[in-house]
Amino acid sequence: MPRLRLPAALLLLTCTLTTAAQVAPPVFTDEARATARQLADRALASDLAYRITRDLTTEVGPRLAGTAQEARARDWAVATLEELGFANVRVESFPLSLWTRGESVHEEAAIVAPYPQPLFATSLGGAGGTPPEGVEAEIAFFDSFDDLLASATGEDVLAGKVVFVNDRMTATRTGEGYGWANRKRRTAWLEAENRGASAVLIRSVGTSSHRFPHTGMMGFPEGRRAGIPALAVSAPDADQIERIHARGETIRVRLKTAADWREETTSGNVIAEIPGTGAPEEIVIIGAHLDSWDLGTGALDDGAGVGIVTAAAKLIRDLPRRPRRTVRLVLFGAEEVGLVGARAYAEARVADGTVDDHVLGSESDFGARRVWRLSSNVAPHALPFVEALQRELAFLGIIRGGNDSGGGPDMSPLQAAGMPVMRLDQNGEDYFEFHHTPDDTFDKIDPDEMAQNVAAWAMFVWLVADSDQAFRPLDAP
Amino acid sequence: MPRLRLPAALLLLTCTLTTAAQVAPPVFTDEARATARQLADRALASDLAYRITRDLTTEVGPRLAGTAQEARARDWAVATLEELGFANVRVESFPLSLWTRGESVHEEAAIVAPYPQPLFATSLGGAGGTPPEGVEAEIAFFDSFDDLLASATGEDVLAGKVVFVNDRMTATRTGEGYGWANRKRRTAWLEAENRGASAVLIRSVGTSSHRFPHTGMMGFPEGRRAGIPALAVSAPDADQIERIHARGETIRVRLKTAADWREETTSGNVIAEIPGTGAPEEIVIIGAHLDSWDLGTGALDDGAGVGIVTAAAKLIRDLPRRPRRTVRLVLFGAEEVGLVGARAYAEARVADGTVDDHVLGSESDFGARRVWRLSSNVAPHALPFVEALQRELAFLGIIRGGNDSGGGPDMSPLQAAGMPVMRLDQNGEDYFEFHHTPDDTFDKIDPDEMAQNVAAWAMFVWLVADSDQAFRPLDAP
Repeated sequence: MPRLRLPAALLLLTCTLTTAAQVAPPVFTDEARATARQLADRALASDLAYRITRDLTTEVGPRLAGTAQEARARDWAVATLEELGFANVRVESFPLSLWTRGESVHEEAAIVAPYPQPLFATSLGGAGGTPPEGVEAEIAFFDSFDDLLASATGEDVLAGKVVFVNDRMTATRTGEGYGWANRKRRTAWLEAENRGASAVLIRSVGTSSHRFPHTGMMGFPEGRRAGIPALAVSAPDADQIERIHARGETIRVRLKTAADWREETTSGNVIAEIPGTGAPEEIVIIGAHLDSWDLGTGALDDGAGVGIVTAAAKLIRDLPRRPRRTVRLVLFGAEEVGLVGARAYAEARVADGTVDDHVLGSESDFGARRVWRLSSNVAPHALPFVEALQRELAFLGIIRGGNDSGGGPDMSPLQAAGMPVMRLDQNGEDYFEFHHTPDDTFDKIDPDEMAQNVAAWAMFVWLVADSDQAFRPLDAP
Repeated sequence: MPRLRLPAALLLLTCTLTTAAQVAPPVFTDEARATARQLADRALASDLAYRITRDLTTEVGPRLAGTAQEARARDWAVATLEELGFANVRVESFPLSLWTRGESVHEEAAIVAPYPQPLFATSLGGAGGTPPEGVEAEIAFFDSFDDLLASATGEDVLAGKVVFVNDRMTATRTGEGYGWANRKRRTAWLEAENRGASAVLIRSVGTSSHRFPHTGMMGFPEGRRAGIPALAVSAPDADQIERIHARGETIRVRLKTAADWREETTSGNVIAEIPGTGAPEEIVIIGAHLDSWDLGTGALDDGAGVGIVTAAAKLIRDLPRRPRRTVRLVLFGAEEVGLVGARAYAEARVADGTVDDHVLGSESDFGARRVWRLSSNVAPHALPFVEALQRELAFLGIIRGGNDSGGGPDMSPLQAAGMPVMRLDQNGEDYFEFHHTPDDTFDKIDPDEMAQNVAAWAMFVWLVADSDQAFRPLDAP
């Protein structure tokens, strides 16, 4: 049974008015609930999140991890968070290997035979480059990643070929089609390289029918990096390759990219706090990530998250009575290139012994559409609290999700170290129309939907941070 | 009163069954109407237009006027039209000055201050290039083309500046927002150059909110070509420039393009016919254009038109009784770069004296959405025919438009020479989402909407070509 902060008199009253033992006492005090509603009202009337996202995407724009642009984003974040009145604003730096696609965001790809025409393509993060004059080779067509996995192995079976993988992704509200579709992005290069291929080309992950290729980081086994170029073509270009292949034609393509690992550099997490008034050592960590891919301006991924969590925290910071626990806002660096900032943050907390002080965590990193569900991953004894929390959020159109959730990408290292999480699930039906493409720009954000996010976040963070509810197993250290 | 082809007995019967002098005799015979309905039924059950457009956009792809790709498109068209059984398939060549943006479809543009970030931009047709290292200059911001026109004139007033013009375009079913928005595309370079500017940058014409710049030909006064670079940026990039300008910041941009006029070459119109069975010298000319811009694969502009008019003509060609007049199908070359093929066609007909044999003309060049209106530009005595024609088409959801229409871009030189026209107006609400951008690709076409077009075209062409209705003024030569 979690500890509750209800006055004894209220508990007694509740028991008197209901049949005994059938109704649990209320989880939140009337004052906490009233404050939560005030926060929501203010959030719905405010465009702060929208303005924060606008400023980040305008004044910094694209901010690839490890670049001068990402450093500018940190400077911008520090200035913004200080101006908003947060405490303990600071940067925690960490080392990073820099990969870029070269001086231009444009890379060259073309069908040279049988029907010469340009392809709209982009390197996947971590891919190798071509010689300056490019490479030209025949396509080995695989209709699915599973077909590639099932194909004959051996160092030479695809010697000199460009492996093409054609899997499609399904659009869903939850985004759950992403993981499956992403397998080819992560490791098609490895399967291709192990079979002697000279390059890999994939149908873009994502659900867009527009002429945008979709980038994103590849996956690397310990100690190994990709030697071959690996690019994604847009869906209409993949359709074209598929149609030509269906005619029985041999397709030759030319690829030219300067993608490469550049240097050892640094990135950093930007941290700000609202110190707890009752139990400042207990940390409710909320986050978003500051870096973005280089093609768009990172408005949906994750400028929107930066705006939402910052605006929600600002509303709580401005309350006359601040919450009992510390709210720690972390704008992570280098998320896109492998959760490097999140890992550095968690490792530092394991090292300094404060990891268990993280009571609960959550990240906003799925665009700017409305929140429709509250999911969690907490100990069973805390479920009544989550259910009560959902009832408070229900007027925003938020239903209860399951208790097997992640807390967002940057929460995963802390979650792996035992931290409970919740997630305000956003409607992701069109998130992968824009995600990781040049089309991830500020105009795609609806300010009203964004304000609904801030309302949900402000209520959620306030109610968690002002309670003494435990979310870890009761026998946890 | 137009001549009608009704048997005297039928006329007599009609008069007998109705009150005399109040009802006009039917314009079409029952046989002609039944044939028209058969054509529509076959069109709605056929995917021929869809397949023709698929093949052109796949096997040729982009086909900029004057390039080897456009020549491949002519070869493809000749082979396709011969295979479909048309008569007199031939190419009429004409000279053309070739302009291209360089070896790549990608050109470089970026904001270098105050907030460095790439811009997605493309040269306008006929624009000049930059030195190989590019140009860097400050933006002179004009919120509208009218502001630019109204600004101070003089050789040096914008010396060294990059003129930016920010007009937006309104989406409409008729596409009527295009002309107004296009003014900046056509002549902003001239206004900029006359004021000493080093380059011009415009918010893309078009209604897309996606990160696609929109190309299209500039306009040139007799004997003058643009010396300066002229590029369009995508709408999200124009938003970015607008936001930075609104902060009072001075914006510096860098542009790098190899755009230039290349050489004197040739293009051509591809012509095919269904010879008339009764009056073969009377020509009903229908068309579409074979060339496209280089960024997309020219599926909507105008692969769809090629598919629609060719499929409609094929249905008529396959009739057991072919129409009285000759149906001439012309797939024009070099439309995008200034109606060069259409002008060459019309000039040749003025020269050989056959221009007045063109009874009526129409072109399909507005995408692949449903036809919703029949517009015309015919002599008043022919209006009852057009009204009767619309009644035949009404079951396809087609209403009557006005009598002040054009017949499509490639019909305009013939129209200027006196040829009457009709137009099957398509729903253009989303046409300018894709038009002249990399996103004009085959996946944007709905086969059912395309089949409705073919049904309307087959009925229209049949009923006009099998009649002896005159459309020119009765006192015309």
